[in-house]
Amino acid sequence: MTKRGFASDNNAGVHPAILDAIAKVNEGHMVGYGGDPVTRQAVDRFKQEFGDDIEVFFTFNGTGANVLSLSSLTQSFNSIICADTAHIQVDECGAPEKLTGCKLIPVPSRQGKIYREDIKTHLHGFGFEHHAQPGVISISQVTELGTLYSVEEIKVITDLAHEHGMFVHMDGARIANAAAALNLPFRAFTRDAGIDVLSFGGTKNGMMMGEAVIFFNAEQARMTKYIRKQSMQLFSKMRFISAQFLAYFEGELWKQNADHANKMALLLEQEVAKVNGVALTQKTQANGVFAIIPANIIPKLQEQYFFYMWDESRSEVRWMTSFDTTENDIYGFVNALKALL
Amino acid sequence: MTKRGFASDNNAGVHPAILDAIAKVNEGHMVGYGGDPVTRQAVDRFKQEFGDDIEVFFTFNGTGANVLSLSSLTQSFNSIICADTAHIQVDECGAPEKLTGCKLIPVPSRQGKIYREDIKTHLHGFGFEHHAQPGVISISQVTELGTLYSVEEIKVITDLAHEHGMFVHMDGARIANAAAALNLPFRAFTRDAGIDVLSFGGTKNGMMMGEAVIFFNAEQARMTKYIRKQSMQLFSKMRFISAQFLAYFEGELWKQNADHANKMALLLEQEVAKVNGVALTQKTQANGVFAIIPANIIPKLQEQYFFYMWDESRSEVRWMTSFDTTENDIYGFVNALKALL
Amino acid sequence: MTKRGFASDNNAGVHPAILDAIAKVNEGHMVGYGGDPVTRQAVDRFKQEFGDDIEVFFTFNGTGANVLSLSSLTQSFNSIICADTAHIQVDECGAPEKLTGCKLIPVPSRQGKIYREDIKTHLHGFGFEHHAQPGVISISQVTELGTLYSVEEIKVITDLAHEHGMFVHMDGARIANAAAALNLPFRAFTRDAGIDVLSFGGTKNGMMMGEAVIFFNAEQARMTKYIRKQSMQLFSKMRFISAQFLAYFEGELWKQNADHANKMALLLEQEVAKVNGVALTQKTQANGVFAIIPANIIPKLQEQYFFYMWDESRSEVRWMTSFDTTENDIYGFVNALKALL
Amino acid sequence: MTKRGFASDNNAGVHPAILDAIAKVNEGHMVGYGGDPVTRQAVDRFKQEFGDDIEVFFTFNGTGANVLSLSSLTQSFNSIICADTAHIQVDECGAPEKLTGCKLIPVPSRQGKIYREDIKTHLHGFGFEHHAQPGVISISQVTELGTLYSVEEIKVITDLAHEHGMFVHMDGARIANAAAALNLPFRAFTRDAGIDVLSFGGTKNGMMMGEAVIFFNAEQARMTKYIRKQSMQLFSKMRFISAQFLAYFEGELWKQNADHANKMALLLEQEVAKVNGVALTQKTQANGVFAIIPANIIPKLQEQYFFYMWDESRSEVRWMTSFDTTENDIYGFVNALKALL
Repeated sequence: MTKRGFASDNNAGVHPAILDAIAKVNEGHMVGYGGDPVTRQAVDRFKQEFGDDIEVFFTFNGTGANVLSLSSLTQSFNSIICADTAHIQVDECGAPEKLTGCKLIPVPSRQGKIYREDIKTHLHGFGFEHHAQPGVISISQVTELGTLYSVEEIKVITDLAHEHGMFVHMDGARIANAAAALNLPFRAFTRDAGIDVLSFGGTKNGMMMGEAVIFFNAEQARMTKYIRKQSMQLFSKMRFISAQFLAYFEGELWKQNADHANKMALLLEQEVAKVNGVALTQKTQANGVFAIIPANIIPKLQEQYFFYMWDESRSEVRWMTSFDTTENDIYGFVNALKALL
Repeated sequence: MTKRGFASDNNAGVHPAILDAIAKVNEGHMVGYGGDPVTRQAVDRFKQEFGDDIEVFFTFNGTGANVLSLSSLTQSFNSIICADTAHIQVDECGAPEKLTGCKLIPVPSRQGKIYREDIKTHLHGFGFEHHAQPGVISISQVTELGTLYSVEEIKVITDLAHEHGMFVHMDGARIANAAAALNLPFRAFTRDAGIDVLSFGGTKNGMMMGEAVIFFNAEQARMTKYIRKQSMQLFSKMRFISAQFLAYFEGELWKQNADHANKMALLLEQEVAKVNGVALTQKTQANGVFAIIPANIIPKLQEQYFFYMWDESRSEVRWMTSFDTTENDIYGFVNALKALL
Repeated sequence: MTKRGFASDNNAGVHPAILDAIAKVNEGHMVGYGGDPVTRQAVDRFKQEFGDDIEVFFTFNGTGANVLSLSSLTQSFNSIICADTAHIQVDECGAPEKLTGCKLIPVPSRQGKIYREDIKTHLHGFGFEHHAQPGVISISQVTELGTLYSVEEIKVITDLAHEHGMFVHMDGARIANAAAALNLPFRAFTRDAGIDVLSFGGTKNGMMMGEAVIFFNAEQARMTKYIRKQSMQLFSKMRFISAQFLAYFEGELWKQNADHANKMALLLEQEVAKVNGVALTQKTQANGVFAIIPANIIPKLQEQYFFYMWDESRSEVRWMTSFDTTENDIYGFVNALKALL
Repeated sequence: MTKRGFASDNNAGVHPAILDAIAKVNEGHMVGYGGDPVTRQAVDRFKQEFGDDIEVFFTFNGTGANVLSLSSLTQSFNSIICADTAHIQVDECGAPEKLTGCKLIPVPSRQGKIYREDIKTHLHGFGFEHHAQPGVISISQVTELGTLYSVEEIKVITDLAHEHGMFVHMDGARIANAAAALNLPFRAFTRDAGIDVLSFGGTKNGMMMGEAVIFFNAEQARMTKYIRKQSMQLFSKMRFISAQFLAYFEGELWKQNADHANKMALLLEQEVAKVNGVALTQKTQANGVFAIIPANIIPKLQEQYFFYMWDESRSEVRWMTSFDTTENDIYGFVNALKALL
């Protein structure tokens, strides 16, 4: 029932230090919905990371964080430009459209990333009432294909957006893996690169649940508390998310977890690269490995180590590592793979 | 920072047995989003309670459970009839309207309860396209005023609804307190009383977070899994809600917690009834006590034991007890109250 | 097939001068969607009436005008306070909730009108994220019960709203009947009485179709052109609404039509008041007469002159007059009524 | 003010026979909202065309017809697949997303048309709750690029959809031009080709306003009357749309108008083809001509005959003909074009 696999970093459990932190704040009563001292500390901790003038809102999950971000930045007649592989486009069952009313415009991506010239083809019709008004560009860091934008690449996109009076949202469900891989502080490739609003993920890197929406300009957060409640993302016993975030930053637990997951992915990449019959489809930059393997062995391999098909049409699979992946998991998996080939 | 008060049962923390259960399932990997064995067990546990043919969906919070219920029962041109004091009407920042598109019709309530003749004045315009089509009656058990519907009162409402082709939703955020107070199995005053869909609450009675939406007719749940995802209420690491529910049912923990909270409320009612200057505004039936006290002492009393104003216009306050309220809390509070009067 | 009745002023056809105006602008090509010279003239005509700094948007119908007004004034977490008899509450199949996402709060009305003290009970919870934020008060002039607010009564409401940072919308589907009955310029009981946004109706007073949304503060109209298009209320061949409005103002056609309809209603009121078995339920102030008559004669009377039941529970009916009602219609109807009693 | 141009077929006015028909039904009172005998006749006329078992709903405009169609076929968690050039994708300011809550998936089109293999790449994720569920394929006939699907091409798409339990909507804003160009009865390339719901346009071919949504399976129309009202597309004085449709079918006025417009487009195509410096970008099949001309002459040419830029990046323009375009208009325009080149 509890064997480890490579399906997703959210198939992992909770880091013990996070569990301890939850237990530690479980004493007595605290005002609900974020009016408690633990939440104030957690918000302060984010301010240390990103600056004193930010606004922070915790949500239950990543879809909630993305939709809260986008709802705060748009009116229903806006459009939101994103990669055709983006989580908001592919994996949220239309939550962004339902909640914001906006049109999502998927831009063809290369290895999960979108580029200025492709985005630009959609930056027209401003002021023309027949056309959904381009309002936001949303990018994922790490992308859904496990790749990374450089700071420079992000700046190109944020400059483009700001030139057109648009905002940039970053879906940072795996932002810790990005920061670890880039070896940069969070701020360097978010706020300092021109990002306006950030979904800062915790769940996929060892927390039980909890994401933070971070506004780098308080003006855009003026209505967010109402939007969060109306979007059903306001946790009554908020201290139990806040305590997780405090532990997550304590001693840079986030970095240890992310570094480890990234390292395991590199090991996995290195080992499967040696195997005949495996074709890696992109360079591993964070904690995901993508490869084409023979279709017939996939079900058998999944029985031993669960993982997901990525693109059935070409027999491409995705293997995600997580904070608790071990070297034994990797070698065991590679052996199983070899045995099947 | 952690003293106990009477603000809300969600100001309490988590029962230790629940925390233990969370820790116990934190081993290895499990398929996310509810495809794990812990969730299957938890769903089975609900089936023991309510019947094998139910459909169960876990959500993060109560607003999420209510909206998921209502979304599954309606189309946007329907209306939803509820008490003017209902949580969906007063305390969810318009989430039901935003997510369902429906009109909510508040019916004047007496002590939190609504009655056939008042509901009936809104049961017209069926088939008339200018009029939002009455689709659902929603009642709360325990009500927002701490009162209870009897089984017979519920049947009157469900009969009325079904005669008109409508559904009945029960907001059971405090359903454990209701079951304990009525000394009835859950099923007796829900499914067996004609309720169609139930929001079954856990958070307010000792869980960390977690509510269940229970459909007594699978037909109405056919699309609910999509609605849950699109409504941002699908938890990736679902085992951590499911394990809580398993512990909640284990040894009838829910009943111990609820019985205790109810008992403490009765003790509080009994003690404050003796105090000059306190006028109880309704009979305590579950874990809430409502009273009118002099406006000038309220802020001072709140400094010692936090609680909320209920109706400022008449200086009415609400005191909620919870699973962890102690007799000392009650006597300490009553003494503080007396000292201020 | 074409006999006249008292069902609604929109059961009447189109005034001949309006038809002529439509025919006259039917020459050659004009830029669509309001970019044509006829529309510019029509907008200018409204500016003469209401001031140069207004913003005007034409819509197809009254529900469209109301929803466009409310959408421009709100975000989805707002509430909209209105009479329990308001068209937006009772007769628009939930369009305001669906399009704005807002909660509508019906206030008990007396003869179709709402009053300061009743509204005030809903003006709380500002800044409290659990509560839909009071955003707009909407009143109807003429009301759905054919009654009128005085300028002073309107000012009480607009003052109350503005004290709370809220807006006031007026549903003026029958605003011409109001202006005629009050013998006041439109501006006197709208803009000058503190109204923020007005639905100015044309359809019910002799136009084919066409309503105008008028903003007295351009700031609130900044996004309205997008909202109108997204709300499907933007007419491609706009000149054919604009020409109607020009004709409607020409020689005060609106006033002739409305004066006549009002006069016919007063005549009807006066004549039925003489009939035994008819109990008028309110004073006729515009073009509607409300009365209780024996239930058994209603179907027979409707066969001769169609009209609608207003409140079946007490056998109350509504008789509307229109620009084309004749004295013969009135006397014929009263005779038919007498014959049945 | 009234010179003719080639901007859009909705820049034309109203055919005289349509105006006459409007005037002729302007007598006496009729029940509103479609309960009148003229509307019954108009619906019957559509039944002659498409079969007795259809359901017909009139709307004000094309965006309204498209959204009403799509709303009737979907729930908010569905996706709608369409051409990247589709009106619903490009020209409706996000109305489909706002009103349906669905995700629109734009498929790369060739000359305005989409094909089986491109559509198929989006037909996955059925039953997977993270993925917006493919629900509808929407195609335009005539397409936004003035091209036509053959009956066989339509059947390929409807078969594909039905194999997957999906519906097919046709945006027939210019369906008359299609029927005329194909020389087929409407039914042959809609109902008989597997289309489920049709937006049948009138406005662009000589009507003042008015579109019809036609359901070929009454089951899918069960809730449409409520959706129409809630979508603000229900006309009170419905006879004035219905009378237009009756006149539109009388003596095949629709065909005369469409044949003429198509013929004028062919003449325009033939004449500009002879001009050096004009590159036609696709074969003219209905009433639109698309061409690349030197960017510098466009503004000057627009001063004489208004038309729209289609694709600024390559200096492609669109010239639409309409029922009232004359041969003189064509020759005058071509001469003006030559003079500028």
